[in-house]
Amino acid sequence: MKSSIVHILKQSDNWVSGESLCRELGVSRTAVWKHIRGLREEGYDIEARANLGYRLLSVPDVPYPDEVTVGLGTAVIGSRIEYFADVPTTNDEAKKLARAGCPEGTVVVAESQSGGKGRMDRSWFAPRARGLWFSAVLRPQVDLVDTPQITMVAAVAVALAIREHTGVAVGIKWPNDLLVDGKKLCGILVELNAEMDRVNFMVAGIGLNVNIDSSQFPPELFEIATSLKIAAGRHIPRVPLLRAILQSFEIWYLRWLNEGFVPILNKWRELCVTLDCPVTVHNIKDSYTGHALDVDETGALLVKIKDGTVRRLVAGEVSLRKV
Amino acid sequence: MKSSIVHILKQSDNWVSGESLCRELGVSRTAVWKHIRGLREEGYDIEARANLGYRLLSVPDVPYPDEVTVGLGTAVIGSRIEYFADVPTTNDEAKKLARAGCPEGTVVVAESQSGGKGRMDRSWFAPRARGLWFSAVLRPQVDLVDTPQITMVAAVAVALAIREHTGVAVGIKWPNDLLVDGKKLCGILVELNAEMDRVNFMVAGIGLNVNIDSSQFPPELFEIATSLKIAAGRHIPRVPLLRAILQSFEIWYLRWLNEGFVPILNKWRELCVTLDCPVTVHNIKDSYTGHALDVDETGALLVKIKDGTVRRLVAGEVSLRKV
Repeated sequence: MKSSIVHILKQSDNWVSGESLCRELGVSRTAVWKHIRGLREEGYDIEARANLGYRLLSVPDVPYPDEVTVGLGTAVIGSRIEYFADVPTTNDEAKKLARAGCPEGTVVVAESQSGGKGRMDRSWFAPRARGLWFSAVLRPQVDLVDTPQITMVAAVAVALAIREHTGVAVGIKWPNDLLVDGKKLCGILVELNAEMDRVNFMVAGIGLNVNIDSSQFPPELFEIATSLKIAAGRHIPRVPLLRAILQSFEIWYLRWLNEGFVPILNKWRELCVTLDCPVTVHNIKDSYTGHALDVDETGALLVKIKDGTVRRLVAGEVSLRKV
Repeated sequence: MKSSIVHILKQSDNWVSGESLCRELGVSRTAVWKHIRGLREEGYDIEARANLGYRLLSVPDVPYPDEVTVGLGTAVIGSRIEYFADVPTTNDEAKKLARAGCPEGTVVVAESQSGGKGRMDRSWFAPRARGLWFSAVLRPQVDLVDTPQITMVAAVAVALAIREHTGVAVGIKWPNDLLVDGKKLCGILVELNAEMDRVNFMVAGIGLNVNIDSSQFPPELFEIATSLKIAAGRHIPRVPLLRAILQSFEIWYLRWLNEGFVPILNKWRELCVTLDCPVTVHNIKDSYTGHALDVDETGALLVKIKDGTVRRLVAGEVSLRKV
């Protein structure tokens, strides 16, 4: 009902009488008024005047499905959008929906995450209304061994959307962190539910720092994290940015499904800022330092270590070393 | 409480008085009697005599945790055993427990599965008390790309346990079906929940036809399925067999974690009955016929096709062709 009211108000440049709203929606004036109040609480600036009716002055920059879907135009990503004011993590909500059989491309977006986390269970700072915290459900029909490629698909898609939409020169750190000036702007956490023969679903969770001020970061993140606002020097509206990211995600996701990993990897290499760099590697088995040379055709990082041999890293954490 | 009564009765070769049961358990005679009745319903044959008390004549061949754990002696697999009379699928129950944080090695076993399924969502015939339908929760710290290896670990472990325990010459069809005389005896369905950097958990579901008579198979399975009873020509007690399988699973699982995939693959090759065979392959992308040559070091099947080239199959379905 609230969606319908927003829709009607958006379509009119002028006042919409309470009477015509009642008529079109088939509800009482009291009901209309109750929904208008609800919309105002959600941030919609709606003027009300006796004899004239209602007029929409502005919409909130909150990733409500009604806002994000306007002009979205994607076929898969964002086919369904679920908004939450607060969830423990959008990945967990997305996994629940995925297990219940939601369509591919379902996106869960939240204004804040009380239990936001990054890779390796690290906590993820996700303050209310200052970022884009969302997860997309994917159901690619690919072999299990190819699933890690999606992390690079997501990194490329988000990096390009940010570059085109904001002009901020974001780069990729292997495999899928987005950096600006060496500081972390965006993290991507992909989770997988599969049989050995078949991917049931994947959830790609994206945490993007948008309008966080430096003073808002907790001390331990101050030196290592950044936001688009800090990088661009201006406030960045989130709804159009999310829309741009979903559109870019759709393009690169379909490209991956149709053309394979090569075009993804080529674009990834262009955007990567951690090749030909001294790095420290931490993975399940051990830690070592070396020089990041390149990625191979599977996306694994090739690191040349001290004795001249090249190690192939398929998973793990890489930090840039200052030399 | 019922477990304690069974334990006390098992420890005594003779009658145990109701009075001593009450004393040891700190409950009333009525309570003891109620539990004895419950145990009888579960299949425990307990004789009761005035003045003498209770005597355990036989235990049921049902995979109750109290029975399976006797002499099990494993450190990981079967660390916890959950029994269900009936569940939709033991894999689903195991996944629920895994998400809730159950310890590695937790085993879910059911007397029947109402929604039993095999790979590719095929239904799995799992009649009450005639098979071993169970799933084990694993939390291996391995790279995502190495996870498909667990299907071969499970196949080797179960095949060897069956061979040693029953003498039935079971063979493996790539990647992990167990066959006797070309008919399917056992299916293994492995499911995975992971991040790109980390396996959260895997569930290895095993459906083993034990005491199914040929006449019990539905018509569509009659020609393609078999059971241990059919193959061995005798009824096979299930509890000791399950224990043997869990013990074997532990040995091969730990071997895989400690020594890697090579010893698994070597043993798998010995047990495989579909190498150097004409096969038809069905996978996500296409279908084709060819000659199965070998598996490579990752466990992928190498199939030589008509034009002489060799295709590498990482996932999919293989059927043996009669030539």
